[in-house]
Amino acid sequence: KAYTYLDTSFPEGPQDARQLVWHPFHVVSASQFQRPLMEVVFAEADKMEAVVKQGGSLLLQGRVVSTLFYEPSTRTRLSFEAAAAKLGASVISTENANQFSSASKGETLQDTIRTIAGYADCIVMRHYEVGSAEDASRVSSVSIINAGDGPGEHPTQALLDTYTIFKELGTVDRKKVALVGDLKNGRTARSLAEMLCQFDYVEVVFVAPELVRMRQDVKTYLDNCGVKWSESRNLAEVLPDCDVVYMTRIQKERFKSIDEYKSCRGKYILTPELMATMKANSIVMHPLPRVDEITPGCDADPRSAYFRQARNGMYIRMALLKMACLEHTPRT
Amino acid sequence: KAYTYLDTSFPEGPQDARQLVWHPFHVVSASQFQRPLMEVVFAEADKMEAVVKQGGSLLLQGRVVSTLFYEPSTRTRLSFEAAAAKLGASVISTENANQFSSASKGETLQDTIRTIAGYADCIVMRHYEVGSAEDASRVSSVSIINAGDGPGEHPTQALLDTYTIFKELGTVDRKKVALVGDLKNGRTARSLAEMLCQFDYVEVVFVAPELVRMRQDVKTYLDNCGVKWSESRNLAEVLPDCDVVYMTRIQKERFKSIDEYKSCRGKYILTPELMATMKANSIVMHPLPRVDEITPGCDADPRSAYFRQARNGMYIRMALLKMACLEHTPRT
Amino acid sequence: KAYTYLDTSFPEGPQDARQLVWHPFHVVSASQFQRPLMEVVFAEADKMEAVVKQGGSLLLQGRVVSTLFYEPSTRTRLSFEAAAAKLGASVISTENANQFSSASKGETLQDTIRTIAGYADCIVMRHYEVGSAEDASRVSSVSIINAGDGPGEHPTQALLDTYTIFKELGTVDRKKVALVGDLKNGRTARSLAEMLCQFDYVEVVFVAPELVRMRQDVKTYLDNCGVKWSESRNLAEVLPDCDVVYMTRIQKERFKSIDEYKSCRGKYILTPELMATMKANSIVMHPLPRVDEITPGCDADPRSAYFRQARNGMYIRMALLKMACLEHTPRT
Repeated sequence: KAYTYLDTSFPEGPQDARQLVWHPFHVVSASQFQRPLMEVVFAEADKMEAVVKQGGSLLLQGRVVSTLFYEPSTRTRLSFEAAAAKLGASVISTENANQFSSASKGETLQDTIRTIAGYADCIVMRHYEVGSAEDASRVSSVSIINAGDGPGEHPTQALLDTYTIFKELGTVDRKKVALVGDLKNGRTARSLAEMLCQFDYVEVVFVAPELVRMRQDVKTYLDNCGVKWSESRNLAEVLPDCDVVYMTRIQKERFKSIDEYKSCRGKYILTPELMATMKANSIVMHPLPRVDEITPGCDADPRSAYFRQARNGMYIRMALLKMACLEHTPRT
Repeated sequence: KAYTYLDTSFPEGPQDARQLVWHPFHVVSASQFQRPLMEVVFAEADKMEAVVKQGGSLLLQGRVVSTLFYEPSTRTRLSFEAAAAKLGASVISTENANQFSSASKGETLQDTIRTIAGYADCIVMRHYEVGSAEDASRVSSVSIINAGDGPGEHPTQALLDTYTIFKELGTVDRKKVALVGDLKNGRTARSLAEMLCQFDYVEVVFVAPELVRMRQDVKTYLDNCGVKWSESRNLAEVLPDCDVVYMTRIQKERFKSIDEYKSCRGKYILTPELMATMKANSIVMHPLPRVDEITPGCDADPRSAYFRQARNGMYIRMALLKMACLEHTPRT
Repeated sequence: KAYTYLDTSFPEGPQDARQLVWHPFHVVSASQFQRPLMEVVFAEADKMEAVVKQGGSLLLQGRVVSTLFYEPSTRTRLSFEAAAAKLGASVISTENANQFSSASKGETLQDTIRTIAGYADCIVMRHYEVGSAEDASRVSSVSIINAGDGPGEHPTQALLDTYTIFKELGTVDRKKVALVGDLKNGRTARSLAEMLCQFDYVEVVFVAPELVRMRQDVKTYLDNCGVKWSESRNLAEVLPDCDVVYMTRIQKERFKSIDEYKSCRGKYILTPELMATMKANSIVMHPLPRVDEITPGCDADPRSAYFRQARNGMYIRMALLKMACLEHTPRT
């Protein structure tokens, strides 16, 4: 692989960078972000941080972004809405999308999307059903950005996670990444593992309670990509050797019984003492919200990157909104 | 009647056009839109399409539009909010208006309106009670736009329907319009029928199941206006002769029993086969959401105007917001 | 005391005015507004009225204000959001903050605040727990503005009340203020009483039903400040002598029994007849919503200041947002 981190000044950038995206630019699945496209997005995100420091931009003034949420996800919604605002776009927002669609009056998702596409230049969509974002993208004349479709995909989360590694460590290549927590149910850890396969000589360590170990499909995917992976039950053993420790929450709501939950909970808790064993140039990540996986005592450590990671989410979403609204929406 | 489609460049337009509206410009009832005012609004809506194509306008920058919804109507709310955004206005929004008014603490609607009128340049109001928009307009120092008051009025829907006929066919005069579906309970069909009376030599055909036939009051109104109307139970018979086929949903929630609903449902379904019998320059409309009144197979037919109709709603609302915020609000 | 009403042209104003606020500028408690700072805020609020009359400003364009409400308070939220809009700021808004924080997934308020502080330039926060705004301010890198923390503080209400007296009467010094209604439970009356102590030779009269008389802590506070106060059960007796009559609602939800509520309700009702006994240059205030404490017949009296008071809330909030977003947020 010979990809470099393109210094594209997109939209004035090289034609080949533009050729990586199609029209309209739908963001449906993490898997559509091959390394060249990822590098375009990351370069854009870098610029977006500068835009925010300068007090925002009017690049998307007059554009309307619809946040169409069929279930509440306030954190994700606010991140997208702040991203739109920082670029000068307006937002039309709902967390009650269910109330005017299929569920209540029998309208199909397709009809809802076609209607909203008449008002908005981009639709950021959250839905409880796997595949709904892809369904939407098939009928929409404007960009669909998937902000999570049930247990399916949440590509902007995967992008912001990968971007955070890239930004904090300068590269993703040759990094050793520990994924810790509920790896069976956690969508973010699964997506990140797959996205890491785009990079060279990455190594992955899965650290999970027995009941919620990483599923075989992801392991097979890594094997097929030639990515080295291993499993461990001992976080302390793994830490000294890792560049990235990606902690995740044990999600109570995913367990069949309270006993099963209790058997998994509290097994892996990162403390300042444990962080003391980590490398100087390593980082700790977490998709948030956290419960007790990382003690507050870790927050002051400069290697604790989780709040910077959340902020990177805004930059990534600004980059995607720019690509969706400015470059790739046909102005009809 | 000698009205022409005014080429007004409102707000710089002819004084007589301006004299059609009052200050503040409340949009309360479809009946206030006599043909001259309608023509002003339609001319504005035409311009708004151009504004959107050019990426929006800053005409209403600094103005605040309040969408004050006492019951959710996400589709209508988003349409108004997109309209405001495309003109550069800001929106303050609530679908929980009930929580801070009469219902919960005993405040009157009048007090709520007077308070919001202190913050906003225009109030777009949805309420569950007939007459509430008119009540609000009596105490408000800023424009009230009625976005539906229970079973009462929904004037912007009637305007966008009429505008769609006008825009698609070049004129409303001399057109034959079939209104199909639940004509007894459907507010949109009733309002459209009445608004059509403003035009010359219009003919209306009511096609409805026996239980939900058009009410006598509308028929009498048409008679008084000298508008020719008829009734039919056979959609196939009616189609070849019509310029506009306006389909509506059989609204389950309006029926007393499930048996009554079932006796009405599925009677009139537009299919590509039926559309094949329609005139080349006719159109199919629907206020949306649809359930099964129009099969998805019809969507690709260029005569299917229902998604364009939804988009026209945004243009009409932009026109009204411009008239409400810019021209007719006293800047005190 | 030698403070004058500073003619500061903040932000270009005198250094001493700026030295009154810290960085970031958190608005947590009414008690932090000593007279010099209040005068800066009031001078800003005066300017904001002019800004609104001129159609708004772009001073805060590119800034993002988050209205983070853990319980709905539509009136307060809309007032802040209109204030942000009139200064050109964008708003990211939620009334469902509970759904993504402590309550549902076990995240701490601190973590939520740190995350939102990564997106927004200012957080306007409403919470049901006393002290939560102060907790938030300890971890936030951007300004926190307390929009009410349960039975605790609501400093922007206290400011807008005091500002209204200042603006309507030219000064607060030497004014006699009657506080009427449920003084035991009413947060606004308590805060206003305390804030009045910042001014010279103010006199306060408490008029309340026996069961809901002003609490001793406030009386002691006034004593310590050397502010003259008295109590009365007879509104008619008090009115002729007052400069300000501040009416409040008897809050049904605060009473243990319906009988207790009934014993307090309807005791003090301001009518046009009673207003006839008031001084020509006096004013009637109310934090709104009102139920029946002031009859609608009073509304036309120019001394009825309650809707102007609500509007002053927008000016005060504009002033605070400007101070929070523009001057005192480190642009990192």
